[in-house]
This record gives sequence, structure tokens and C-alpha cells, in this order.
Amino acid sequence: MAIVGVENSNTWMGAGELLSSEHASVVSINLFVVLLCTCIIIGHLLEENRWLNESITALLIGICTGVVILLLSRGKSSRILVFSEELFFIYLLPPIIFNAGFQVKKKRFFRNFSTITLFGAIGTLISTGVISAGIYVLNLQLNVKYISHHKLVAIGAIFSATDSVCTLQVLNQDETPLLYSLVFGEGVVNDATSVVLFNAIQSLDFSHISSIASLEFAGSFLYLLISSTILGVLVGLLSAYTIKTLYFGRHSTDREVAIMILMAYLSYMLAELFSLSAILTVFFCGIVMSHYTWHNVTQSSRVTTKHAFATLSFVAEIFIFLYVGMDALDIEKWKFVSHSPGTSISTSSILLGLVMVGRAAFVFPLSFLSNLTKNFSSDKLTIKQQVTIWWAGLMRGAVSMALAYNHFTRSGYTQLRPNAIMITSTITVVLFSTVVFGMLTKPLIKFLLPPTKQMLASDSMKSLAIPLLLDGGNSDDEESSNSLPRPTSLRMFLRTPSYSIHYHWRRFDDGFMRPVFGGRGFVPFVPGSPVESDDLQQQWLN
Amino acid sequence: MAIVGVENSNTWMGAGELLSSEHASVVSINLFVVLLCTCIIIGHLLEENRWLNESITALLIGICTGVVILLLSRGKSSRILVFSEELFFIYLLPPIIFNAGFQVKKKRFFRNFSTITLFGAIGTLISTGVISAGIYVLNLQLNVKYISHHKLVAIGAIFSATDSVCTLQVLNQDETPLLYSLVFGEGVVNDATSVVLFNAIQSLDFSHISSIASLEFAGSFLYLLISSTILGVLVGLLSAYTIKTLYFGRHSTDREVAIMILMAYLSYMLAELFSLSAILTVFFCGIVMSHYTWHNVTQSSRVTTKHAFATLSFVAEIFIFLYVGMDALDIEKWKFVSHSPGTSISTSSILLGLVMVGRAAFVFPLSFLSNLTKNFSSDKLTIKQQVTIWWAGLMRGAVSMALAYNHFTRSGYTQLRPNAIMITSTITVVLFSTVVFGMLTKPLIKFLLPPTKQMLASDSMKSLAIPLLLDGGNSDDEESSNSLPRPTSLRMFLRTPSYSIHYHWRRFDDGFMRPVFGGRGFVPFVPGSPVESDDLQQQWLN
Repeated sequence: MAIVGVENSNTWMGAGELLSSEHASVVSINLFVVLLCTCIIIGHLLEENRWLNESITALLIGICTGVVILLLSRGKSSRILVFSEELFFIYLLPPIIFNAGFQVKKKRFFRNFSTITLFGAIGTLISTGVISAGIYVLNLQLNVKYISHHKLVAIGAIFSATDSVCTLQVLNQDETPLLYSLVFGEGVVNDATSVVLFNAIQSLDFSHISSIASLEFAGSFLYLLISSTILGVLVGLLSAYTIKTLYFGRHSTDREVAIMILMAYLSYMLAELFSLSAILTVFFCGIVMSHYTWHNVTQSSRVTTKHAFATLSFVAEIFIFLYVGMDALDIEKWKFVSHSPGTSISTSSILLGLVMVGRAAFVFPLSFLSNLTKNFSSDKLTIKQQVTIWWAGLMRGAVSMALAYNHFTRSGYTQLRPNAIMITSTITVVLFSTVVFGMLTKPLIKFLLPPTKQMLASDSMKSLAIPLLLDGGNSDDEESSNSLPRPTSLRMFLRTPSYSIHYHWRRFDDGFMRPVFGGRGFVPFVPGSPVESDDLQQQWLN
Repeated sequence: MAIVGVENSNTWMGAGELLSSEHASVVSINLFVVLLCTCIIIGHLLEENRWLNESITALLIGICTGVVILLLSRGKSSRILVFSEELFFIYLLPPIIFNAGFQVKKKRFFRNFSTITLFGAIGTLISTGVISAGIYVLNLQLNVKYISHHKLVAIGAIFSATDSVCTLQVLNQDETPLLYSLVFGEGVVNDATSVVLFNAIQSLDFSHISSIASLEFAGSFLYLLISSTILGVLVGLLSAYTIKTLYFGRHSTDREVAIMILMAYLSYMLAELFSLSAILTVFFCGIVMSHYTWHNVTQSSRVTTKHAFATLSFVAEIFIFLYVGMDALDIEKWKFVSHSPGTSISTSSILLGLVMVGRAAFVFPLSFLSNLTKNFSSDKLTIKQQVTIWWAGLMRGAVSMALAYNHFTRSGYTQLRPNAIMITSTITVVLFSTVVFGMLTKPLIKFLLPPTKQMLASDSMKSLAIPLLLDGGNSDDEESSNSLPRPTSLRMFLRTPSYSIHYHWRRFDDGFMRPVFGGRGFVPFVPGSPVESDDLQQQWLN
């Protein structure tokens, strides 16, 4: 039954006012779906282009559409297109972060875990401090002499939020795996830090900062980090155990896929419910699901989930950029600053500068610290890699937008001039950093880290590693180099100190975890599940 | 960044009232996801049960949850759980109907096209007439002597809407393919009829029903039927042409899957925009996509789309039944009828009786008419099959609920007693017909049409047909019996009169359509797309 029929019937039932709002939502859904298709097709055609990527295309198309709507509506842009935090946090962000966890190279991620935590936690605190201090010193021409400490820290936190989504688009996991895992991992931990910051500054009395308050802050941060991770791991293990015990594959691929999607989403929403860091939770749920659950399902479920998660994430990303682009042109928020464009431009420039300084203030010192703990020079971060890490994390995206809206407006509206300036400045910083920095990142990486060397290095590593492995075709979700400790020669090679945690984890994993929760090589053979055709799987998954 | 953090930060920004509504939506999403998982697992465990199916389980779990919420909230059930037409029509219904078109046995469907149209169009008109007349005659104790003609026809149409979703759950496409395509196809055409009915009764002057008005009615019905179908076919062909021309598979499975999902949804929303029958449009879009687009994509895209569409549809179905079950217990709407429960019970019984009489009034006469046009006795509908068709279409579901809400309430609320009685009666009819009729359908089909015969017949047909075919492994989306006209002996066999339309369509399809839009055997070989491994595909798709 069509809504339109229902709408028309409203007219004679005396509820005609529903008609226009439902019609408007039908029109805007049509518009968004057409634009999404356009972005995908243009992104496909521009794949070889070194400057543009899908995010920037979507952002530019969004801005163009915004202009067209503005012209068609003769200056009064419609309110449908105003950024909605709920849409962003509840529907668009979870698939992106889950997919990142699901497809991340787990070995690489965990080997750099300490560096990632250092960057994400301490780095974000340093960046927030630098930006807040910078605004305080410059006082930003906001015409508010006595800007509250809470607001200062909030602005610092908003502009310290590295956009994980942009990073995923700009850095390539296969070309620059180390930088990808560092910058993306940092973005995920960054979230936990921001949540703790927001919660902490409410209770924190800035006039009496004591050592006990700092300890409390550190304690609640650790609690958030650990409990969010544990929740994600638990939900992931529950999904693995459920599917292994009931063996859904006996009957239906659809049930397995449905359970995996629903459980992944459940982990995110449970974290929201318990006031934890949902991004961290769903990220770890993705890692656990790819390590255990994914191996417990039928072959067609594996192909389906792998591509369905990637597609969902891909569409959500394009949607976000389209949305930010369209929202940027909303006329309401520009009205307050139109008679003093200079203030807005100078505020934006100062903020952009502070973002760059704030990031530099932690990337280079922390990289130095991190290098001190490494034994091999090949594990150390070169200055070129440090510059790339600094640059690739400069982009500010939808997360900053959502935070700014939440802090400076009431459901998208504001009546105060300083707040309006903060909103327009945030939009300017987001657009500028995404488009300009985003465009320059690919050429910069090519210039600083020429791909031939990188690629050759990883190729030679592979060709060296494969003869050592018993079943090289099995390495579909981890790196093929040294993930399987079965051959004794390889195990000996791995028993250098930095690998010992990994070695003990493998023993625990093989001895206890996999027999209980399933995983590669630990799924009992059941008719109807083609677990034996691993070489075919390789061919199919690409 | 967690919403919860954002919420907390609201407190000190002076927008604290957002907190409770966002928290409530987080709680209800968690609840729904947990219930969906529970339904899937219980449905899996009860798979062999002959009485229950996933819909009934979901409905019962929904009712139980409603009771628990009612008890926890001490009699004031929360308003979150009120049925939303927008959620139903814009998000839950499209994937179900699209998937039905995507997975339908096309040959069987088109062979019975005339019967389906007869049942769906004329049948719905007869049923609406019988139910409306029945209410008029009995006057239904509504205490409204002068019930308007418009309202009478609306009630008739609400209770003539066969629930396609229930049908999909109760009838099995593999066990009773003829009945499945008849009853389900009828449900789809039924939608077009209902839309035209609603539109027509607004302009129709019941005191001056002329022959011109009837002709206009018939004309607008034909227009709606044909234009909706054409729109669906066009969007489907556009997706096939786009993917064939650009060859997305060269780069990315994710882009192909995204384009297919988005285009399918676009067809539905475009039909809504143009006031057409969206269900009919998306159904035909699904048929065209499975015939052309699906063959133009990579092997992993095929596996992914096949299972992703089925999963989406599966989850949406369970969601609907859960939702209807939970909504049924909402206390508000029962308040008005609580002091006269007899009226509600008698109204419901009368409506149930009228639904059964109304359906009988067209199934048996129209089956007789349809049988007159068939030459072979094997094509004719036996009396047992007619009884099954009558019975399987008796269930009323979410579509009836949505229509009733739209007609008798204003965003879920009503202050008039007759309207409240209609709402509670609709809920009673939906619950009773789904649970009781639904439970009895499987045993009834087993009793009337024993499966052994059916299965044996189709088995022998297959074993007879396969040697005639050159590549039997190719028949993954159509019936294997006679879908490929390549061998001359088979082609001669097909050239009996009733197959001539099909024969000409095949010639047109092979000569013009497939070279342009792609399709089985007409996709140029491109490296990276494993089109040659058709036998593997079979193994993988199951």
C-alpha cells in the first residue's frame, strides 16, 4: 500500500497536515538516493585520479546541491537538510567503525597497540590543551572576555577529534599499513579520551585543580577504555559462541548474516546505554567477530558479510560527506556572521592554525618517545613517517560538526552571535581541511614515501614467508608473513622479546579460545558447510 | 564519540531536555535488537515445528514484551512502541517486496500472470464490495446510523488487503510453487487496486454513480498498473545498463552491491513520489534486476546480493511482527472500549466473518473463470487448491494495521469511540488471523496437498528435463525444466499455443535485450570476474 494513497485518504479524514511533511521526506529520500548513486558512479570514474577521492567528490556534490536548493528556494534553504546528530551517531557511524575493526589487519594493529594508545590518549589531551590555551591567549575576538573554562576545553576537544572516516578514505591499508593502523587506531582511542574529557570537565572545578582530581580523571579514563573494550569483546564472543553452538549454517545463511549484523549493532547500542565509548566497543567487536565468528559460518555467509559490511560502511561514508556538504550551505547559520565576514574568516584561520600546532605538539614528541622503546631500527618511525602521521590526522570531519552542533546550538538553531561564529568556523575548518588537506594527502604520501619501495618490501617479505608456512592459502584475514606459529623454525624466529606477548596469546588462543568459540581450523565439519575449500575461498573473496 | 557524552555535555550547555528522549530511543533500539536476535534463535530452534513459524514466534514474543512493559510501567504503556506508518512503508516494506521479486520463480509467475491479475484486481474489488455491504447491512452496532459511504469503502478496502508478508512466511515457494505465485502475486496487484480505490472514492459521488465514472475508475486503475510496472522495469534496466557499461566489477564489489541496493530503493521511492503503487514498482524492479543486473556483476557480488537481500527482508519481516505484537498491548487504545468489551468482540467476529465471506466470494468464481481458459487439465485449479488459495489469503497483517491507523487516528491517537472500536477490532482481527489461521495453514496444506506427490512430480520433471539441457548447472534463478530454448527438440516441445508468448519473448530477449542490458550468457569476459565457474556458483549459492 503506497503512502501516497494513505496521504490522499488523509485529506478526507481531516489529517491533511501530515501530507506535506511526508511528501517532503519522500522528496529528500529520493534526492539523497540519486546523489548517492551519482557519487558512487563519479567516484568509480575518478578512481585513477590522484587528487580526488570519494569523500571529496561527495562533499563537492553536496555543496553544489546545497547551492541549487538555495537558488530554487530563493534564499530560504529548507530545514530538512540540517545536520542531525542522531542520524550520524546512531545509524551512520556504527557500520563504518565496525567495518574498520572487521577488516583491520589485526596483527599489525596489536603490534603497535602501545603507540596507538599513546597517540590516542595522551596525544588528544595535549592537542586539547594546546588549542584551548591558544584560544585563551588570542581571545579570538569573540567579544566575550570572560569565556568559561568549560567552553574553552569543549572547543579544544571539538577540534582535537581526528576524523577516522577521512583517514580511512585517504590512507590505504595495503600501501601504508603501519601509518594506517597508527592514524586510524589513534582516531578510535581519541573517542574514548573525548568522552572522558566531556564527562570530567563537568565535575572538575578549574579553580582548585588538585592531584586527587587528576588521579580521578586518569582513573575514569582507564575505566572507560577497559570497560568499552571488554564489552565489545564479550558481545563478539557471544556471537561466535551462539553461532558455533546452534550451527545456523545447517539451515540458513540468512540467519547467520542477520545475527552477525544485529550483534554488531547491539554492541554499539549497549555501549551507548552504559555511557561507554561506543566507537571503541564496536571496533573491538568487529575484531573479535572477524577472528572467531566469521570462521564459524558457511562460505556464502563469509562472502556476504565481508562485502555487505564493506558496502554499508562505504555508503554511510559517502552519505556523511554528502550530508556535511549540503548542510554547510544552510542559510540560517550564515545570517549572523554575514555583516562581519572578517571575524568568521579570522576565527577559522586561527582555529586551523591551532589544529596544526596542536597536532604537531604531540606527534613529534610522542614519536620520539615511542622510538625509544623499539629495538630494531626498522620498527622506528622515520621523520618522513612522522610528518605523514601529522598531516593525515589534520582533517576534521563529521564528528567535529556533530560536537559543535551539540555544544553551540539547540536542535540546529542559535540566537547568540558568538555561538553562530563557532558553528560557521567549524564548518569552514571541516570543509577546508577535508577538501584541501584531503586532496594534498595522496600526493604528499607519494612524495614522502614512494610506493615502489614499500610495495617491493612487502612483496619480498611475502615471498620469503610463504615457503615457511604450511598452508599459505589460509591467510585471508591476517598478514601472511608470520601469523601461524606452527612450523618450529618460524616459532623460533618469532621468539624475540617483542613477539613474546603474541606468542603467549597464540598458545592461549589455540589451547582455549578457539576450541570454545570457533575460529580458523577449529570449526567441526558439518555437511553443507564447505569449510574444506580454502583455496577456492581465496579466489572468491577478491 | 558517544552520544552519551554529548548528552551529558548538554547539561551544562542548557539543553538538558534532549537527554531523556535520546536515552529513550537508545533503550528502545537495544530492546528491539535483543528481541530480534531472540526471535531468530527461537525461530531456528523451532524450524521443524509444524505449527509455529518465525512470524508467529515474533508476534507472540512481541505481545509478551508488551505485557512486561505494561507491568513495569504500571499500566501506562510507553508511547515509543506505537505503530509508525512511515517506518513501515518507507523502511520495512520495500526490502521485503523487492526480495520477493528478486527471488520469485519468474517463469511460473508470468505463466499465471492473467490469473494473478484477475485475482488481484477484480478479486479485491469484489471483496471490498462484500465487506462494505456486509457492514452496511449489519450496521455493526457502531452507534453511527449515518456512516458515510467513504468510510464504508475504506473499511472494506482495509480488510481486503491480503498480507503479502504473511503469505511469504506460510507458503513455501519450493513445495507449492503454483499457489505461492498465485497468492503472493495477488497480494502485490491487490496494492494497486487499493491505491486506486482510495484515490477514486475521494472524487466519486456515490449518489450519482454513472457509467462514465466507472470507466474513469477502470482507466485510472489500468494507468496505475501499467505505469508502476513500467517504472520498476525502467529503473531495473537502468541499473543493468549502468553496471554493464561502467563495469564496476573491474574495481569493486562494494560499488556494485551499493548501486543495486540504492537503485532498488530508488524505484520504490520514485513510485511514492509519482503517487504510483510503490509495491508493484519495486516488485518488478526486483524481477528485472534478477534477470539482467545480477548477471552483470562479479561472482562475489552475486553471492552477497542474493543473501544480503534475503537477510534484509527476513529481518524486516520479523521486525514487523514484533512491532505489531508490541503495539497491540498499548493501553491507550483499549481504554475507550474497556467498558463495553462485548461491542469490540462482536465487531471483530463480524469483521473476521466478512473477511472469510469476502474472500470466498471471489476465489471460487474467479478460479472457475480461470479454469475455463486453460486447455490442459493439469493447469486447472482443483477444488483443494482453491480452498488453499482462499485460506492462505485470509491473514491480515501490518498493511491492514497501517491503513486502519491512518484512517481512524491522528498520529496514533483517537478521541472518538467508534474510531477506537475500529482500531481495536483491526488489531484483534490481525492477531487472530495471523496466529490462528497462520498456525493452521501448514497442517492444512499438508492435509489437502500431500507433499510427497508434489515433490515427486517436480523431481521427475527435473530428472526428465536435465538431459535435454546443454548446461543444467546454469539454471540457478529460473526453473530448470524449460527455461533454455537452445536445443531444437525442446524448442519444438515449447511451441504449443500457451507458450508462444514466452517463445517470442525469449527471441526478443536474446536478440535485443540481453546484448544491451546484459544477462546470463551475454556478459563479456573481463579479467577478475569469474563468469566461467558456473558449477562452482551452484555449490556456493546454497
